[in-house]
Amino acid sequence: MTVRKNPVLVSDKAHAEALLEKYDNFLFDCDGVIWLDEKLIPGVLKTIEYLESKGKKFAFVTNNSSKSREAYVAKFLSLGFKGITRDRIFPTCFAAVQALQNVYNIQPNSKVWVLGDSGIEEELREEGYIPVGGTDKRLDQPFHPDHELLVVDPEVAAVIVGSTKEFNYMRIASTLQYLLYKNKSIPFIGANIDRSYPGPNGLILPAGGSVVNYMHYTADREFLNVGKPSKVFLDGILATHNYDRSRTLMVGDTLYTDIKFGNDGELGNGSGSLLVLTGGTKPNDLHQLLSNPHHYEGGESLIPSYVIESLGTLGELLS
Amino acid sequence: MTVRKNPVLVSDKAHAEALLEKYDNFLFDCDGVIWLDEKLIPGVLKTIEYLESKGKKFAFVTNNSSKSREAYVAKFLSLGFKGITRDRIFPTCFAAVQALQNVYNIQPNSKVWVLGDSGIEEELREEGYIPVGGTDKRLDQPFHPDHELLVVDPEVAAVIVGSTKEFNYMRIASTLQYLLYKNKSIPFIGANIDRSYPGPNGLILPAGGSVVNYMHYTADREFLNVGKPSKVFLDGILATHNYDRSRTLMVGDTLYTDIKFGNDGELGNGSGSLLVLTGGTKPNDLHQLLSNPHHYEGGESLIPSYVIESLGTLGELLS
Repeated sequence: MTVRKNPVLVSDKAHAEALLEKYDNFLFDCDGVIWLDEKLIPGVLKTIEYLESKGKKFAFVTNNSSKSREAYVAKFLSLGFKGITRDRIFPTCFAAVQALQNVYNIQPNSKVWVLGDSGIEEELREEGYIPVGGTDKRLDQPFHPDHELLVVDPEVAAVIVGSTKEFNYMRIASTLQYLLYKNKSIPFIGANIDRSYPGPNGLILPAGGSVVNYMHYTADREFLNVGKPSKVFLDGILATHNYDRSRTLMVGDTLYTDIKFGNDGELGNGSGSLLVLTGGTKPNDLHQLLSNPHHYEGGESLIPSYVIESLGTLGELLS
Repeated sequence: MTVRKNPVLVSDKAHAEALLEKYDNFLFDCDGVIWLDEKLIPGVLKTIEYLESKGKKFAFVTNNSSKSREAYVAKFLSLGFKGITRDRIFPTCFAAVQALQNVYNIQPNSKVWVLGDSGIEEELREEGYIPVGGTDKRLDQPFHPDHELLVVDPEVAAVIVGSTKEFNYMRIASTLQYLLYKNKSIPFIGANIDRSYPGPNGLILPAGGSVVNYMHYTADREFLNVGKPSKVFLDGILATHNYDRSRTLMVGDTLYTDIKFGNDGELGNGSGSLLVLTGGTKPNDLHQLLSNPHHYEGGESLIPSYVIESLGTLGELLS
């Protein structure tokens, strides 16, 4: 195991330039790094334009499964980013569909039960799968034990659970029927393990991992986490773009997903994780982790190689 | 630790009479023992009338927090039970309010944030507390970050989370604000840890413990479980009615709540738990537990002293 030193605080131009020297490829988390809900974090667009002007490569890796890659392309465009193509966006709705194919070998035209938003449904359709459940309007109805969607469709081959705010008892109860069906043998894919995420107005809001964990608890069965810090997810992204692992940096705001993802994946020869403080992790959280890492699940794998106030700060320091 | 033998199957009149000989007091779980949702389990009413005719004492102990004791009195009456007074009904909405007083010393007239059904609100009002959240209609509205109920009311002194089917993002997100408030220091009471419960039509449905666990996960903090198998809950019930612990039997359908409750509480001198098979636990579940108890969280404390097909069977065998 890598013994991790305290992170380097990136606070002046020399530090920032050293980062640019060391890394060719940047993986960015989105919520809390690029934006807070629909609001861009100041300076971020400028930073990314600067990196691009220096020939750096980058991709966006988000545990949020609510939007498809297509929908993210539109969101980036609406926030002023130019030319972010969908091959550079890796949301976990996409990762979940990849896992259907690569991990479970589930054939196209199979039905897949969804607890989550349209992103999962869109990515499923794109690969020829048939989403059921999900945004089906009948699941907005009040719970009733005779509801038709509580009867298991035996053609369903897998269950994907991810981020959604359309969380109600009908959706949860119907999803549970599939997770228990056939002695709990239908594959159960979770889009992420995120407890919460930073929303607007300084709010901390429940995240998709809490939904996944709800279903894990009520069904009393494990799931495959396809989101960060999954190594399979990282390897897929690096392979897609031929990124050199040793010259890649993960930039994120969450210790147990983003930072662990970079560290477990041995990015940057073991020092390829940069924490930003614009999201869910506050300076005091980092301080507590550093005081006693073994108190945390994940231990030293949560310690970032670098820390910076904001992704916007990086651009400011460099320009 | 008590080394537990395999349970005695109560399958003939001699076994049933031996039980009656051994126990004066019977604690009954409700869901899966007395009824399935609104439907009485066959023979149960007759069994309880028989026990009463023999001078046996009994109380109902349910981890369901949705209904107040008053509401349970009405439910028992509507199902044909006569004279079940509220002092014999112990739902966890009541236990949660007791814990506010006895564990946290929270004064009457304090506000208590509720994620759960009206049972909790009614029990709170009865003790002079002011419930907020809960069934407030404004929480049925779609989530919006500017929603007034996402702003923490600093007068809230505790949070109670329990069973509800009115589960939506507004309720979860607003509850999270209280659980995180003041560095996570406001008491967090969970009404139960039940993963699921047996509903009508053979359905297994998500239970209140899954809601509690959702909030535990998203807030990343522990809670006080006031439901079965809590020893504090059991001690309170025994004390209320002066039941002799050594002559009390717990009857339930769930291993990790009901059976553990009777076993951990040393009812019947260490053999005071009776499993019925009309609820969530199937014969195969019991078989698997007995084959390898140490594979289960709780281990041997989950093994019932007795097992019977149904509470109705007990009456049949005795009459």
